[in-house]
This record gives sequence, C-alpha cells and structure tokens, in this order.
Amino acid sequence: MGRLSKPLVEVLIALAAVIGIGFALLQWFLVSKIKLSEQPAKGGKSKTDDGVCDDDEEGPEGFEAVRKCSEIQNAITIGATSFLITEYKYLGVFMLVFAIMIFLFLGSVRSYSTHSQPCHYNKNQMCKSSLANAVFSTLAFLLGALTSVLSGFLGMKIATFANARTTLEARKGVGKAFSAAFRSGAVMGFLLASSALLVLYITINLFKIYYGDDWEGLYESITGYGLGGSSVALFGRVGGGIYTKAADVGADLVGKVERNIPEDDPRNPAVIADNVGDNVGDIAGMGSDLFGSYAESSCAALFMGAISSFGQTHNFSAMSYPLLISSMGIIVCLLTTLFATDFFEIKDVKQIEPALKWQLIISTVLMTGGIAIVSFVALPPKFTLYDFGNQKIVKNWHLFFCVSVGLWAGLIIGYSTEYFTSNTYKPVQAVADSCRTGAATNVIFGLALGYKSVIIPIFAIIVAIFVSFSLASMYGVAVAALGMLSTIATGLAIDAYGPISDNAGGIAEMAGMSHSIRKRTDALDAAGNTTAAIGKGFAIGSAALVSLSLYGAFVSRSGIDTVNVLTPKVIIGLVAGAMLPYWFSAMTMRSVGSAALKMVEEVRRQFNTIPGLMEGTTQPDYATCVKISTDASLREMIPPGALVMLTPLITGIFFGVETLSGVLAGALVSGVQVAISASNTGGAWDNAKKYIEAGVSDHAKSLGPKGSDAHKAAVIGDTVGDPLKDTSGPSLNILIKLMAVESLVLAPFFAAHGGLLFKWFS
Amino acid sequence: MGRLSKPLVEVLIALAAVIGIGFALLQWFLVSKIKLSEQPAKGGKSKTDDGVCDDDEEGPEGFEAVRKCSEIQNAITIGATSFLITEYKYLGVFMLVFAIMIFLFLGSVRSYSTHSQPCHYNKNQMCKSSLANAVFSTLAFLLGALTSVLSGFLGMKIATFANARTTLEARKGVGKAFSAAFRSGAVMGFLLASSALLVLYITINLFKIYYGDDWEGLYESITGYGLGGSSVALFGRVGGGIYTKAADVGADLVGKVERNIPEDDPRNPAVIADNVGDNVGDIAGMGSDLFGSYAESSCAALFMGAISSFGQTHNFSAMSYPLLISSMGIIVCLLTTLFATDFFEIKDVKQIEPALKWQLIISTVLMTGGIAIVSFVALPPKFTLYDFGNQKIVKNWHLFFCVSVGLWAGLIIGYSTEYFTSNTYKPVQAVADSCRTGAATNVIFGLALGYKSVIIPIFAIIVAIFVSFSLASMYGVAVAALGMLSTIATGLAIDAYGPISDNAGGIAEMAGMSHSIRKRTDALDAAGNTTAAIGKGFAIGSAALVSLSLYGAFVSRSGIDTVNVLTPKVIIGLVAGAMLPYWFSAMTMRSVGSAALKMVEEVRRQFNTIPGLMEGTTQPDYATCVKISTDASLREMIPPGALVMLTPLITGIFFGVETLSGVLAGALVSGVQVAISASNTGGAWDNAKKYIEAGVSDHAKSLGPKGSDAHKAAVIGDTVGDPLKDTSGPSLNILIKLMAVESLVLAPFFAAHGGLLFKWFS
Repeated sequence: MGRLSKPLVEVLIALAAVIGIGFALLQWFLVSKIKLSEQPAKGGKSKTDDGVCDDDEEGPEGFEAVRKCSEIQNAITIGATSFLITEYKYLGVFMLVFAIMIFLFLGSVRSYSTHSQPCHYNKNQMCKSSLANAVFSTLAFLLGALTSVLSGFLGMKIATFANARTTLEARKGVGKAFSAAFRSGAVMGFLLASSALLVLYITINLFKIYYGDDWEGLYESITGYGLGGSSVALFGRVGGGIYTKAADVGADLVGKVERNIPEDDPRNPAVIADNVGDNVGDIAGMGSDLFGSYAESSCAALFMGAISSFGQTHNFSAMSYPLLISSMGIIVCLLTTLFATDFFEIKDVKQIEPALKWQLIISTVLMTGGIAIVSFVALPPKFTLYDFGNQKIVKNWHLFFCVSVGLWAGLIIGYSTEYFTSNTYKPVQAVADSCRTGAATNVIFGLALGYKSVIIPIFAIIVAIFVSFSLASMYGVAVAALGMLSTIATGLAIDAYGPISDNAGGIAEMAGMSHSIRKRTDALDAAGNTTAAIGKGFAIGSAALVSLSLYGAFVSRSGIDTVNVLTPKVIIGLVAGAMLPYWFSAMTMRSVGSAALKMVEEVRRQFNTIPGLMEGTTQPDYATCVKISTDASLREMIPPGALVMLTPLITGIFFGVETLSGVLAGALVSGVQVAISASNTGGAWDNAKKYIEAGVSDHAKSLGPKGSDAHKAAVIGDTVGDPLKDTSGPSLNILIKLMAVESLVLAPFFAAHGGLLFKWFS
Repeated sequence: MGRLSKPLVEVLIALAAVIGIGFALLQWFLVSKIKLSEQPAKGGKSKTDDGVCDDDEEGPEGFEAVRKCSEIQNAITIGATSFLITEYKYLGVFMLVFAIMIFLFLGSVRSYSTHSQPCHYNKNQMCKSSLANAVFSTLAFLLGALTSVLSGFLGMKIATFANARTTLEARKGVGKAFSAAFRSGAVMGFLLASSALLVLYITINLFKIYYGDDWEGLYESITGYGLGGSSVALFGRVGGGIYTKAADVGADLVGKVERNIPEDDPRNPAVIADNVGDNVGDIAGMGSDLFGSYAESSCAALFMGAISSFGQTHNFSAMSYPLLISSMGIIVCLLTTLFATDFFEIKDVKQIEPALKWQLIISTVLMTGGIAIVSFVALPPKFTLYDFGNQKIVKNWHLFFCVSVGLWAGLIIGYSTEYFTSNTYKPVQAVADSCRTGAATNVIFGLALGYKSVIIPIFAIIVAIFVSFSLASMYGVAVAALGMLSTIATGLAIDAYGPISDNAGGIAEMAGMSHSIRKRTDALDAAGNTTAAIGKGFAIGSAALVSLSLYGAFVSRSGIDTVNVLTPKVIIGLVAGAMLPYWFSAMTMRSVGSAALKMVEEVRRQFNTIPGLMEGTTQPDYATCVKISTDASLREMIPPGALVMLTPLITGIFFGVETLSGVLAGALVSGVQVAISASNTGGAWDNAKKYIEAGVSDHAKSLGPKGSDAHKAAVIGDTVGDPLKDTSGPSLNILIKLMAVESLVLAPFFAAHGGLLFKWFS
C-alpha cells in the first residue's frame, strides 16, 4: 500500500492546484499595478527610478508614450482576441462533430449495449458498459478541449495585457521591465499548470461517482481529456503558426528587404498583424500545445496505472502518483520563480540570460528532490505493472529514476538547443560567417546545422526511453514524460517571457520611444529568443516521450502484445508513418508561403498607393493585413489538421491496429527528427542575423552592418527559417502526440471493427 | 522441380552476360567512329548532314573546334582519371583493413575452428566450418569491391570518351548528337549490368567447387559480394558528390553571381573541376551505387533462396531465379535500346525527352512478359520459403507478381519524380513563380515541394513491399527489388546520358562553338536533367526495397524471429536509426559548404590577381581548383563514411542484434524520406532556374530574363539544391543499403559475441 491516506492525497493535490492559481493571480495583480492610464504622473516618476542607462531624453515621452503604448496594445489585443474567437468558433463546430464521432465509434464497440461486462485486464471484476465508456470519453474530450481553449486564450490575454506594461517599465530600467515580462510569463505558466491539474482532478472525482470501483473504465474514459486538449492544440499551433509567419514573412519581405525600414516600424501595414501573430501563435498556440502534452502524459500514466497491481487493488495514493508529481512540480516552480523575481534583482542587461537559465537549473535540482519525496511517500515499495501481456515487478525507487531521467533529459535537450541556436556559440557564428558568400551558403550551412542539432537531443531521449522503459515499461515512459513536464510552470514562464518581450520591443518602436528604451527591450528580446528555442526543445522532447507512452497505452488497449516490424502490415505502416511529417510540413510551409505572397502584395499595394505612408504622415491600413492573416490561417489550417486527425481513423478502420501501430511508430521516430531540425535551423538563422546586426565582436562587425551584403543574405535565411521554426516544426509535436492519443481513445473501436480492407481480401 | 536443366541454366546466364558485354562493345565501337583527330576533313562534312537548325556559321569552326574539343576532353579525362585513381588508392587501404576485420570477426564466431558443423537451417546436413565462411566472405567482399571500382572507372572512361564526340556530332544535327550520347550511356549500362552478373555468376561457380552441396554456406559467403560493392559505392558517391558540388557551387557563386559570366565559361578557373566532377560524381558514383544495389538485391535473394525448400533440395534452376531475371533484363534492355538508336531517329529537339521516356515504358512492358516467362520456366509450381521461423507456401505465379510489382513501382516512382522536378509541370512552375518575391520564398516553396514529392513514391514502395512481403516473405521483397533493377541497363543508359550531354554542352561553350550547336547541346542537357532525376528516383526506390530484403536476411541470419517495437532495445534503435540520415546529411552538406567556400576564395583570387583573365586573354589556373576539389573530397568523405561503416559494428558489438535491427529499420524508414525530398527539392530548383532562363512561356518570360531579380533568386535556390540533390540525397541510398548488408555479413559474429553492454549490466 502507498503510505498516504486517501483524504490526504485528495487535499494535497487540490491544495497544490489552488496555491498555483493563487500565485498566478498574485503575479497578475503585481503586473496590473503598472498603470496604462493616460495620467501624465507616470512620466514624472520615471526619472527618479533606477538608472542603468539613464542618459537620454526620457522626459518628453512621458504622457504621449503612455497614450501611444496603450493605443497599440489595444490594437493588438483586439486583433488577437477577435482572431482567437473566430478560430475557436471554427474549432467549436469541429469539436462537436468529432465528439459525436467518438461517441458513435466507441458506443458501437458492443452495439451500444448498456450491460456491464467483465473487465479487460481483470476478468474477475465487472466493468461498466462500453456505452458508458463512450459517454464519458466524449465528456472528457470536451472538457480537455475546453481547458485547452482556456489555456490558450488566457495566455494571450495575459501577454497582451503585459506587453505595453513591459515597454513602460523599460523606461525605469531593465530590471523593472524584466520583472514585468517574467511575472506575466509566470501568470501564464502557473495558471496553465494548475488549472490543467485541477480540471483533471475534478473530472476524475466526478467520473468516479458513476464508475465507483471500475477504475479500468474510469481511467480509460479519462484518456479523452488528453485527446480534447491536443486537438485544440493542433489547430491552435497550425492556425496560429500560419497567422504569425504569414504576417512576419510578408512584413519582412517588403519592409526590411525592399523598403529598408526597420522591423516593427509603424509605417509597415503588416506590423500589427505581425504583433498579433506573436500572441496567437507563440503564446496561445504554445500554451495549448504544452497543456496537451501535460494532459496526455497524465492520461497515459493514469491509464497504465489503472491496469497495474496498485490499480487493480485500488491503492489511491499510488494511483495518484502522476498527479502528485505534477502537484510537487507546481510547488517547486513557485519556489524557483521567487529566485528570478524576489530573491535577486536584475541590474544589468547581461544578467537576463543567466537569470532565465538558472531558472531551469534550480527547478530541475529542486524537482529531483521533490520526485524522491513523492516516490517514497506515495508508492508502495514494490508492485507489478502491466507489460504487454506480462507482469513486471517494479520498486518505488525505480520510478524515482524514471521520472528523474525524463526531467534531466529535458534539461540536456534545452541546453543542447541553446548551444545550437544561440549566437554566443560557434555553430551559429559559423552560419553567420557563411553569409559572406551569400544566401545560398547561408541556407546550406543552416540546414546542416539543423540536421546536426538532432544528435544530442535524440541521445537524451534514447537514454530516457531506455531507462524508463526497462525499469517500468510504458508506465515508466509516461512518468518520464511527466518528469520532463513537471517543471512546466517555470518552462512556460520562460517561454511566454519571449514573445512578451518581443511585443514590448515592437510597441517601443511603434510608439517612437527613445533609443535607450529600445536597447533595453532589445536585450530582453534577445534573451527571450534563446529561451524560446529552449522551450521548443522541451516541447519536442516531451512530445516524443508522451507519444511513446500513449503508443504503449494504445497497444495495450488494442490487445496486441507485439508490434513486429517483420510483418507486412507493420512495416508498411512504419514507412507510411515516417512519411507523414513530410506531407504535413509540405502543407504548412506552402500555406505560409502563399499567405506571405498575398501579404507581400497587399503591403506593396499600400506603399505604392497610399500617399504619405513612407513619410509617416498617413497611417497604413492595418486591418486589411490582419484580415489576410486571419483568413489564410483559418482556411489553411484545415488540410494539415485533417491529415493528422484522419490518418489514425482511416488507418484503423481500413488497415487495422497492426498497421496503425506501425504508422504511429514511424511518425514518432521520423517526426521528432524533422521537428528538432526545423526548429533549430530556424532559430539559428534568426540569431545569425541578430549576431550580424548587433556587431558585438570583431568577427560580427566584419560581416555587418545592417544592410551589408552579408546581412541581406542573413535576412533571407531568417525568412526561410520563419515557417520552419514557428509553423511546421512545433506543429509536428502535436502531430505525433495527437495521432497516438486519438488511436488510444478509439482503440476499442479499431480492435472490434477495424482492418476492413484486410478482412475483405482474406 | 524447376523445369530447366542445370546445364541449360548455366548456358543461359553466361550467354546473356556475354551478349550484354558484346552489345556494349558494339556501341562503344560505333561511338569511337566519331574521330577526335585534328584532320580538318570532319568540318567539311558537317555542312552536308541533316539540317534541323543549319542556319549559321558552322564552317569556320571546323578544324579549330575539333582541336579545342579534344584539348578540353583531355583535360577533363586527365582530371577525372587522376582523381579516381587517388580515390581508389585510399579505398584500397580501407578495403584491405575492412577485409581483415571481416575475416577476423567471422572467423571468431567458432574460434577459428576448421571443423564442419550442422547447418543452421537444415540441422540434418553438415555445413562447412565458420573459418571457411570467413575466408570466402572476405574473398567475395574483395571481388565485389573490385567489380564496383571497375563499374565506376569504366563508366567515367566512357563518359569522358563520349562527351567531346557528342559535341562534335551536334554540328551535324541533334539526332546524331543524341545517338552519340545515348549509345555511350548504353555502353555503361550494359557493361555494368552484364559484368555484375558475370562476376557474380563466376564467383558462385568457383565457390561451389569448395562448398559442393553446402548451399547454405555458399550463399551466405556470397553476401560479401554485395558488401564489397556497396562499400566502394559509399565512398564513390560521397567523395564524388563532394568533389562535383564543391566545384559547381564554387564556380557558380563567383562566375554566375558575382562576375555575371555564363555557366561553363572557359574564363572561370573552376570550370574544368566542375566538368571533372560530373564524371566522377554523377557517372562513377552512380555506377558504383547501382552496381551495389544490384549486387545486394541478388545476394539477398540468393541467401533467402538457399534457406528455402528449393535451396534445401538443391533445385539449381529455381535457385538461379534471381540471376535468370537479371539475364532476361539484359536481353529486354537490348531490344529496348534499339528503339532509341536504330528503329527510330530523333529529328527534332522536342523528340528527345519522349524518346528517353519511352525507353522506360518499353523496357517495363517487355520485362513484364520476360518475368512471366522466367517465373514459369525456372520455378517449380509450388515451394516453401523461410519466413522468420515459419515456412511459407508459395506458388510460382506469386513470384511473378513480386518481381512485377517492383518493376512497375519503379516506373511510378520515376514518373512521379519527373512530375515534381520537370518544369513542364505545375509544381516547378510554382517554385519558379515564387522567385518573384525573392530567394526566401523560393527556398520555402522548394523545400515544401521536396517534402510533398515523397508521398507518391512512398505509396508505390508500400504497395511493392506489401504485395511482395505478403506473397513471398523477404524473398519476395528481394526479387521485387531485383524487378525494379531488372531494367538497370536501360536505366543507366538514360542516367549516364545526362552528365554526358551536360559535359558536351560545357565543351561546346568552352570551345566557343556557335550558338546553334550550343542550343542543340542545351536541348540534350535539359532532357538529361529530367531523366537524371528519374534515375535518382529509381536508385532510392530500389534502395528501399533492397535494404528491406537485406534487413530480412540479416534478421533471419541472426536467429531473431520478431523485431518487436515494444521492447526497450528495439525502440531506442529505431529512434537512433531514424536520426542517422540527419547526422549523415549534416556532415556531407557542411563538407560541400566549406569546400565551396575554399573554391570561392580561390576563384576570386584568380579573377583579382591574374591580369587579362576576365578579358579572356590569359588562361586561368585550372589545376589549383581541381586540387581543391580533390583534397576536399578525399578528406571529407572519411567522417560520413566512418559513420555508416561503424554504426552497425558499434551497435552490433555493444548493443546486440535487437538494437541493431531497430537501427536498421529506423534508418530505412527515415532515410528514404530524406533522400527523396533532398533529390527532388534540388532537381526542382535546378529546373525552376532553367525555366526562367529558357523563357518559353509567357509566364516564364515575365520572370526572366537571365540576370533579373527573379532569376537571381532562382540561382540561389539552385545553389542550395546542389549538395542536396547530388551529395547528401543520393548518398543516403547507400547509407541504408550498406548498413543493412554489413549487418547481414557480420550477423553470425554479432549473434555470437555482440551486445556486450547489456551483457555487462545484466
């Protein structure tokens, strides 16, 4: 037996979630104290505060600056909100249709019978009817989708609430601005981690009222929660990714390349769309993505737990192990956050990046201790886990290793990503150097860098898989994924900090603020660029583990004991699955490309036809550009979305679970590589360009300045990288996870009625 | 029993090989009748012949042109020969070391015992000692390597013999020039196909003197032949690929982009290196590659045959089925060739591409009949095949379907490749159109096109695998690969035709020949570009099937019955294997990139320091550029070569056969995708550029002419595509095949002594 009593477990989980939400609200409150009203008082104050680079004309900007910032923020908020609401409307229809389908498919497994039946794994016990399973899976699906929508939407709200405030704080110094941006990121991180835990926890408790002792059925239906979360994330990532990159590429191609005006210049008609894009793509999309990962790994762990010995013997404390790990994660992240915002204060630009990186190290070290506590307190010293038809004997310290190996693998992936994408290291500098001979060599070196950057993350993932799989089968892999995600609140805080700072810089530029303020926001942004890459690394690494554990759960639920590569059905699935990431990337990249072409035409048209635009005497027509991005992303997210959602369905129905298990494995092993290389190539190009622009070293100066041939070549690389790093790359995480969780939820249906094609032929 | 007597089979195979070689020599003789001596007689004749575009000043060029062509041809031949000889010296050392290793490893399986032992699959029979196996495997390895070297070297000799002759024939008209180029291609195709068959056939017969009735041992040791062939091919492809693209990229970046001089302009110091590269990369490299595929698929089929019922009962006719298919292929290709060179005559530029494409269709249709004949004549109506521990009952018409499905899948892959890389279709035109907004969109659209182009080939491969695997297990997959390769003589003829025409055009340009002659060689070259892409499609498709069949043979030989994805050892192998193509591509692309940088510097230096170079009054220093390419390729081929050769060794020794079987499957399913997309992306960019340059349609004219912004963007895409399509893409074929065949040859060693790491830990 686990050593914690049931009531204590119940209280601990609820408490952690509530503390997390409270902490998020506190941070929100602190950020909201920065006033965005039009009282000139603020301007006066700004002079007295900290003086890191207080050497210029801040005074005159006071009142006007606040008004302008507030105006721009409003425009961004309105654009982002209206896009997300439209997107969610589309999604709502889709979710409803899909929910009905789930219900019909799962209900049909035993022809909508309402009779109880012997359980699948424990034949001595009676389980609820498959109709009940259909109803509750559908409910869980809808709840997951709703929570995911909430995660994305709230993230966007917070980010757009924080960006102008960060700009205004930058007047007082870099430390204040950093605090504002980081606190806002923390709001999102804690709100998401806590509400994900809380909703899941409440759902389980509500479902339990009906399911009672039928834990197998209970946790089977809970898997719908993960599916719902990930479905929303897919469309969020793809739609948001197309939106942001169509605007970004379009704005850059005309503004930076043709018209030679700086980034975020208010004269560029696509500039508002670009800033809206950061919030709907990088913030809302990523929020939904990581929520999906979290929900899925929890569901996979819970499902595998339910069919283990402690699941069968109804040991509540052990069963809640995944939720307790997440609860501990919230507390650990809370402590970690204090290091960034309260225990130390940023006084210099150079301290920003270390401060963010220390967050990762501190949270990882603290969490390792936390895992040890939870593992020894919640788990019985010895138990058995379901291992594809066999029973595997596992000890509680085995699970400590499983969770920890995931956690530390995440850190290694993060640091390797940083090494390959930050311009303080050699790889990006070599890419920048290759711009000397033009855009072609820049692209060649960038692609090669992306390919190379998969090596270390893959080895980290392999070690995590091997240790966790060997020690505790698929349950081990699931909790390893949870381990990587246990510090999600900190990870998301750091991640969201990036786009918020990016936006803050954009607002400073658009509001025409002084050079020193823009320097501060630029410094915030540069650090954010690296951490954004780290965040993507985490997202991909965890996606690999999550999808493997979901895969294991799917196979277990389909009643297959082996997935033998040496059978025709599996090998063709494997080959086809490995092809899917390419098909998917082709779709998303083309979508960005053609949406960007439209944007370019519109921006050119405005520059050519609106008199006084280049001189800054007339305002451009921002709304048309916003509309182009909105329309393009809503239209173009459907085909790639359909590819991901329909592949498991079609494969399962026509080719059966063996081929589907091949497809999932193929997509997993190939998708991870494509995703990592795409993200890092894009990140490296971006920072190679920034390296030339910043010109800090002699080497960098020899390539620059802005506008030199080498810089132009670097801009081309950066533009190519945009859809790679922000659209196709991160969306692939969701491809591999979503196909796996969809297969898991529908596994009973495929096992019962699937494989029609082979049935017809034989 | 098979219906052909043993002597008849012996005669038929030998006869086909001899006829093929005779036919190749006949074609060579016909080409050699075009005199390259300095008699002015040739020039006079030229006026009287066919007059497709006889409208300009050909007369004055007569004597001088022949002299110049011969001079340039000499320079190319000397460069190519000296590079290949240096390369083969390096290879010789490597092959020797590797041969010793093979001997030591295989000999150690039973501690170098000379005693016979019970056979592996037929325990009632005695097989030769494992020491004999080691000796003969090593011998076969060396023979395979030698034949591969011969294939590459002879191909290069023929190509450099033919290029200037094609240029000279172009003076007489496009039909004559086409004949010269195509006949030379045919020399290579038939020589390679026939000598590969003949050497294999002789080796088998010689080995049989020792092995006698021990067919299991005999055909096990024969697998060394495939390994030898592929090892040489690896270094040939990688070394040649780096050579050709370093020169090409370097020449283009300075010549076309900076100095605005046309391709192949004799003032460009890298121009000779570029032309040498075509011969050592595209010709010698590809020759070795396809020889490797052919040798490997034959070995895989023979090995799987030896452990089938007809192998155990010593049915020679059925056992020789793979060789008989290849023999039939030679005869079919011979007939097909006559359609291009004798039955019809090319009279117009527009007939070239259809003529080449009809070759593929004719050979495929004829071969389908040929397969039927061989299947019904050579095979017993019913027999059993080894199917991973089980026996599978197979009928002779099943094998007809297996071979045919491979053959036709090849055709589909070829045509899909053409659709995605030829500028007569929409995909490439869309890429060309995206050049309107600059290089960045061109690269984005090109990458997306490459990703998309994997879909159809993968489905074709899947169908081929499913049909052949379902009908006849791994033997079926092996003969499906042989089916795809059965028309190799025609395929190679078409393939080699491309670089020969490319060189002919280069020589025409360098010799300063008239515009109409260059128009003719350009037309030959354009058609060759498309067929080169088709050839690459074939090479990749067959590599996928070959490597799967080798994989099956490896697994059978290691004594594993299932490769279960759901075990830690296999899944980590799968993930790591899928990463290898990325690691490999990173290495090769970076190598091309840095070698090209060096080339750029040298070419710039010459333009800046040699007075009179741009005016054409002084000759550039070609030799230094040749040396840069040579040194770079020899140095840079080692790391990627080592990666491919060492991975199976290290994995087998330390992690054992299960992990190795995961690695091979992962590399296969991921490598195919990377290879196809890389080849097609590069081909599409190349032809998008040509589309703008040629300006045949209104759309194309609106993007051009040469030197326009859109054209400059297209040149950047083309340059990026160079290493993708000619270095990393095609080398990946060899990666997936070579790792599989190496594992197959060393399987007994790995099974006996491998997996040290897991042994230590448990």
